[in-house]
Amino acid sequence: MMTSTPGTTQANLTQLEYLALNASLNVADGHARQDLTETQKRIIDDLPTLFAKAAGEPLEELERNAQRTFLTTFGQHRFPTGPDRVLSCYASSVAMEILARSLVGSVATVGLVHPTFDNIPDILRGVGLGLAPVEEDLLVGGDLDAGIPPEVQALFVTTPNNPTGRVLAEDRLRLLAQVCQRRNIVLCLDTSFRGFDYRAQYDQYAILEAVGCRYVVIEDTGKLWPTLDLKVGLLVSSDNVGLPVPDIYSDILLGVSPFILALVERFAEDAAAGGLDELHEHIAGNRRVLRETLAGVPGVSFPDPDSRVSVERVGIPRHTGSQLFDGLSRQNVFVLPCRQFHWADPERGEDAVRVALARPRATVAAAAAEMRSILLG
Amino acid sequence: MMTSTPGTTQANLTQLEYLALNASLNVADGHARQDLTETQKRIIDDLPTLFAKAAGEPLEELERNAQRTFLTTFGQHRFPTGPDRVLSCYASSVAMEILARSLVGSVATVGLVHPTFDNIPDILRGVGLGLAPVEEDLLVGGDLDAGIPPEVQALFVTTPNNPTGRVLAEDRLRLLAQVCQRRNIVLCLDTSFRGFDYRAQYDQYAILEAVGCRYVVIEDTGKLWPTLDLKVGLLVSSDNVGLPVPDIYSDILLGVSPFILALVERFAEDAAAGGLDELHEHIAGNRRVLRETLAGVPGVSFPDPDSRVSVERVGIPRHTGSQLFDGLSRQNVFVLPCRQFHWADPERGEDAVRVALARPRATVAAAAAEMRSILLG
Repeated sequence: MMTSTPGTTQANLTQLEYLALNASLNVADGHARQDLTETQKRIIDDLPTLFAKAAGEPLEELERNAQRTFLTTFGQHRFPTGPDRVLSCYASSVAMEILARSLVGSVATVGLVHPTFDNIPDILRGVGLGLAPVEEDLLVGGDLDAGIPPEVQALFVTTPNNPTGRVLAEDRLRLLAQVCQRRNIVLCLDTSFRGFDYRAQYDQYAILEAVGCRYVVIEDTGKLWPTLDLKVGLLVSSDNVGLPVPDIYSDILLGVSPFILALVERFAEDAAAGGLDELHEHIAGNRRVLRETLAGVPGVSFPDPDSRVSVERVGIPRHTGSQLFDGLSRQNVFVLPCRQFHWADPERGEDAVRVALARPRATVAAAAAEMRSILLG
Repeated sequence: MMTSTPGTTQANLTQLEYLALNASLNVADGHARQDLTETQKRIIDDLPTLFAKAAGEPLEELERNAQRTFLTTFGQHRFPTGPDRVLSCYASSVAMEILARSLVGSVATVGLVHPTFDNIPDILRGVGLGLAPVEEDLLVGGDLDAGIPPEVQALFVTTPNNPTGRVLAEDRLRLLAQVCQRRNIVLCLDTSFRGFDYRAQYDQYAILEAVGCRYVVIEDTGKLWPTLDLKVGLLVSSDNVGLPVPDIYSDILLGVSPFILALVERFAEDAAAGGLDELHEHIAGNRRVLRETLAGVPGVSFPDPDSRVSVERVGIPRHTGSQLFDGLSRQNVFVLPCRQFHWADPERGEDAVRVALARPRATVAAAAAEMRSILLG
């Protein structure tokens, strides 16, 4: 954990999230910090048994079961099963780092969805890749072939997107995959927020494999369940991807903890057995509390009315997002300004902040009340 | 986990370790796979309580306590405490990746101890850095100023080294730090195996801080305790290091799991209360079993008679290490050939294999018996 941070507009989003970690009202980071449900509590009560199971079972089997249970719970039935096709990483950002390093050498320019969480452009640039912004609107509804710049050799799309919650629909993913296939672009998807939105749980692998494009998908167990950041990021590649993903993976890790794999399997089973509906209701309830609390505040809007992910943008035309961020942080309430999500054009993010919803109801209610009071004041 | 691997001499060491993960006799990787001690079992029985503690305590306090308990248990009393000076990572290799990325831009050539585990040169080269080998003999006893090539801007030393167990003694570290200070070289230490050897547990930070050189140290909880790879790598930097370590850290992670931090604290407390002596006895016993089983086998030698780390090199002049590796793996016994440790001159590693000792006694005994039979056959 870090303790010093540059100024609000210079800092990256993760650095602003650090500030919130010890705050009384942290609605900044997108980690899952809601309370455990009753059935999840029973899994935690059983951790010693889970440890023994993880110690005793063959790792290969344990890992295969955890991956399959997680992926199929979210509709990904046709995920690839060949050697090195699904690599378990410590976190989705570690998967991202491995992907970025794997692109260097064969890819010069990555087309990247705009806006999106800033550690993605930072990692891609950090390893020396060039970036070309690709607007979310284009991906969701525009002319893909004309809109994706000609120099793009890999295209990175977060779906559902963070912070907007926009989902690439099935027909759009197919079109996108076809364009990538035709132009030999590596299609990279970050689906970390998929668990929150049934509309993103169609079988993406069935489409990608049918089209036959080169692809890499980053899956993440880390946004969903309050497991104190015991999580796994999955790095899934197509057979024809032509990138040294397994080599770079093996430079960085031998594998993740079998204990965490066993835990992921149990939480995914719980999700499939009703936990997912419960989670969706909890997030929807928190979203309602936030929207209702801020209703009627002059100038406040909700730019993503249809979003179901565990973060919500709040539009604040009268103020800049950075100013509201500062006012709230003086009250020990931490949100994220949206400026940094707009990595290619920060000014476009100045009129919104992002509020995390994967929190206890009371935390969201208190943060929303504080926002209302500052916005009205 | 990976399932496909290039040929024995082309593969990297981690890829060879994958092969062993599901083998009946895996003495390949350096992860801690011995049985839990009685007091460690009690910590595992208490995991639900530990989860509740980790969920309830302020993260900053939890992390500070875990870091302090771990570092001071191993004699590192004067570790730095300022902002961003000790960053908790998912693993020591993630710390390594962050360090490597932080060096790019201000450092062109890294002097790297030779031999050492091959993921270190692979990560450094992977981010585009040049390497200059620095022989272990030079570090331990040679003329440092003359021996470190003039182009070196950062020097990376593993101490105790892997696979040799050689330790940089206190006076040698001081000399090395002084040379680095004078020549403005960033001194980078990987001390992942320190816990196994009291001779490496003098206060290295006291020396580094007194000399005032630029330094980065990678600490690791992952080699010591059979926690199923629930572990933390620490990335410690000097105040004057002048590298963007905190920025790159924040691109990759917000922080590690508080549950793992709490677990590390408990295992470190157990180590301080007698567990460390018990661990040393266990490793020494396994080393004795290996040496005694192979005693009298013509041509077998132990090139590191004084080593106390949890891996042991076995010298085999009559065979090449790679041949023995192949013979053993046909019997489902996995060791590591030493070829790849000699990253600048692989042929020098052909006459040795590395055997992991952090295993149950019976595993080491059975692997040693199989080695004896193949070497005699």
